Amino acid sequence: MLNPADAALAAQLPQGVLRDAAPAYVEEPRGRIRGLAGLIAAPRDADECAAVIRACAAARVPVVPRGGGTGLVGGQLVADGPAPLVLSLERMTAIRDVWPEEGVLIAESGATLHEARQAAAAVGRQFPLSLASQGSAQIGGVLSTNAGGVNVLRYGNARALCLGVEAVLPNGEVMRDLKRLRKDNTGYDLRDLLIGAEGTLGIITAASLVLAPVPAETGVAMMVVDSPAAALSLLALAQARMAGGVTAFELISGQGLRFLDAAFPDMRQPFDSRPDWLVLIEVGLPAGLSADAALEGLFTAGAEAALVRDGVIAQSGQQAADLWALREHIPLANRHVGAIASHDISLPLSEVAHFVADAGEAIAARGDMRINCFGHLGDGNLHYNLFPAKGRRREEYDDIRRDLSHLIHEMVVARGGSFSAEHGVGRLKAADLARWGDPARLAAMRAIKGALDPLGIMNPGAVLV
Amino acid sequence: MLNPADAALAAQLPQGVLRDAAPAYVEEPRGRIRGLAGLIAAPRDADECAAVIRACAAARVPVVPRGGGTGLVGGQLVADGPAPLVLSLERMTAIRDVWPEEGVLIAESGATLHEARQAAAAVGRQFPLSLASQGSAQIGGVLSTNAGGVNVLRYGNARALCLGVEAVLPNGEVMRDLKRLRKDNTGYDLRDLLIGAEGTLGIITAASLVLAPVPAETGVAMMVVDSPAAALSLLALAQARMAGGVTAFELISGQGLRFLDAAFPDMRQPFDSRPDWLVLIEVGLPAGLSADAALEGLFTAGAEAALVRDGVIAQSGQQAADLWALREHIPLANRHVGAIASHDISLPLSEVAHFVADAGEAIAARGDMRINCFGHLGDGNLHYNLFPAKGRRREEYDDIRRDLSHLIHEMVVARGGSFSAEHGVGRLKAADLARWGDPARLAAMRAIKGALDPLGIMNPGAVLV
Repeated sequence: MLNPADAALAAQLPQGVLRDAAPAYVEEPRGRIRGLAGLIAAPRDADECAAVIRACAAARVPVVPRGGGTGLVGGQLVADGPAPLVLSLERMTAIRDVWPEEGVLIAESGATLHEARQAAAAVGRQFPLSLASQGSAQIGGVLSTNAGGVNVLRYGNARALCLGVEAVLPNGEVMRDLKRLRKDNTGYDLRDLLIGAEGTLGIITAASLVLAPVPAETGVAMMVVDSPAAALSLLALAQARMAGGVTAFELISGQGLRFLDAAFPDMRQPFDSRPDWLVLIEVGLPAGLSADAALEGLFTAGAEAALVRDGVIAQSGQQAADLWALREHIPLANRHVGAIASHDISLPLSEVAHFVADAGEAIAARGDMRINCFGHLGDGNLHYNLFPAKGRRREEYDDIRRDLSHLIHEMVVARGGSFSAEHGVGRLKAADLARWGDPARLAAMRAIKGALDPLGIMNPGAVLV
Repeated sequence: MLNPADAALAAQLPQGVLRDAAPAYVEEPRGRIRGLAGLIAAPRDADECAAVIRACAAARVPVVPRGGGTGLVGGQLVADGPAPLVLSLERMTAIRDVWPEEGVLIAESGATLHEARQAAAAVGRQFPLSLASQGSAQIGGVLSTNAGGVNVLRYGNARALCLGVEAVLPNGEVMRDLKRLRKDNTGYDLRDLLIGAEGTLGIITAASLVLAPVPAETGVAMMVVDSPAAALSLLALAQARMAGGVTAFELISGQGLRFLDAAFPDMRQPFDSRPDWLVLIEVGLPAGLSADAALEGLFTAGAEAALVRDGVIAQSGQQAADLWALREHIPLANRHVGAIASHDISLPLSEVAHFVADAGEAIAARGDMRINCFGHLGDGNLHYNLFPAKGRRREEYDDIRRDLSHLIHEMVVARGGSFSAEHGVGRLKAADLARWGDPARLAAMRAIKGALDPLGIMNPGAVLV
């Protein structure tokens, strides 16, 4: 039903919008899929973007929006079917305006997350969304995938940080809704519908984003706990004491620490032995309360409640950065080992400890493997990754890889969890959504897709199969 | 095209679902509109609710969902056309479950906001949404209208406090999506689409709600400022110092204080004279930092910056309650005077002061009136209400009332603001939405309405005209 992007379409596009083909337009970070691109277009503004979409609609050509290309579920490329027009936001990179006292900036979709964060910092504010890929991830992609990261616990995900969007809808109309309002109850929440729709309902071209005040006092600590259950009790204790001041609460496993030892032997770790479980805690507090004192108070209370065994509180910005570096190097250490399968899951907080115990047993029963379970514990979001036993190669697990992932996802869903906490559905998890999604919800999603994109040109094959 | 709810439909409904007619089903708080009700149905659960909706769909009978009936824009009743089936949530009032450590509870839609708050308090948590009408407003209505209130600045509106919903869609299917997850990126955000849709896309029957930790230290202060601009600078100062610890930041005008004097002469006010502008500030802070010290520090810093003239910090829970009582009695005092016109507007924060100045001039040019401008300044949300000059009656302004509202809304929209910040669109503001809404957004809203409710039975006439 759809046609490839070809010379006939090219002739219908606005002058100067086409780009030369390049590998960067059809790659994804893990190098597993290579995408197709019949044409590559990079509009300069929303109106030019709308003209491209109208031309694609008239020619029934699929459109694949392209941001930084850092997505992990294949939402940014299509590997089969008619070659699409790849719509790159690379020329829409402006930070259009910043209102420091208001705590708002308007960024175009091609600006990187790093650039948005820099623009906020330049006026003494912060854009609190923070991801490993922020140097290349773009605002449009960040919103389209409702990206998460390490500060969701306090500031919410991308959705929570967006007040308004400018977007090109599949019919080629521009929705101009770049409001800077904290409250606006005037009709359906199309902003949140476009956020997280992964480019299947339109293209976000600019957004008004929330800037948060920079806390007067910040501090970072690492604490040794016996179990994920103890970590969660420590989190509840921290939240009760800090009045919402816990900015990040990350779980690190002993397996992750040993992977770090192997991959980065020069990296200093704060504890001589490798404890089974650690948490990395960051707090941001009001003026008048030292973060050091608050973290010491938490440590003491945690120790009294038999939740914490050992701990270290960063005494400088450098030490804080060093503790964060450990957490941030875990995905690199994982890549060094080579995962059999990785999972971006979330669970209700009270199910996390049960899941970790049960899943550990279930995996052990399937074969000899190493598990590195780590991530954003404060959000119930774990990266639950499986690795070969020492001395074995990942290829030896090829025949059970799919079953392992299915097992993990089944266990997560059975406990009310999600098979995609922050990475989205893309194409790699579209079948999972079809399998585990609520039927009435899926039917409503399809009805909405059909209503807004009756030709099915917007990122076909992503999210809905 | 639609038919009235009649005996033939009644025969198709589940046994025992019908209720006797009563004024409470067809009234709204201001007593201006009286609704129609052909039948009144109160299902016991989502499945029974779905059976009612299917029967209505088969008979092409409009359905008007009914919560606490406290809405101010007529979304809860229909005054003309075929008499609808009024669907009351009064029998779905359970707090189904509470997870204190997780910070989640699941409430049915007929539970009042007060009951949800009580259930949270009973486990040492808080459900932070707080409204004047919380004793009768129900969770379903609170979500369907995306209600706001005094704590939005810190905790967000109803939308920000909902993790998942169970809902009956217009086709009579039940969407079961009562997740308790902080992160879940698996498809379109139907939850946020239903929230704020005012019952036009389905009926929320239960919701999982976020419970926040109760801050270790809380404090309340009232400070005298020269102008709304000074108030906003004080807010920025407070946020920079309190690291997100400002829970409420309410503006009160001298006119409001004089109305309080007239309506409640026994109420003690903290300042001997009646200053032109006051702010009521509530903070919630971590353990180890006294709220008194933090508010004193803010007062001193505010005075040094020439933002604050005078102030009082509550020295007890009773004093804090007394300060809040002043704010909460302003709407009652307004009613005592009798408004010519009232407006629930929001503005970008940096536009608030300009708007207040310009609107004051514009109103003065139209006639002799008193303005009581007050509300949730931290959210840019003002209740901008016009009253007769002293000694005159509101009826004398009947011929300019509409023009005045139009003028105010035009000025708000021109500054990027909203003509309905927290009350919603309902029926009273549906024409405003049609006038001022972005055309592409309105078209998309209509497409979604058509896709999910092709028969148009769900709360017809609300939101979209």
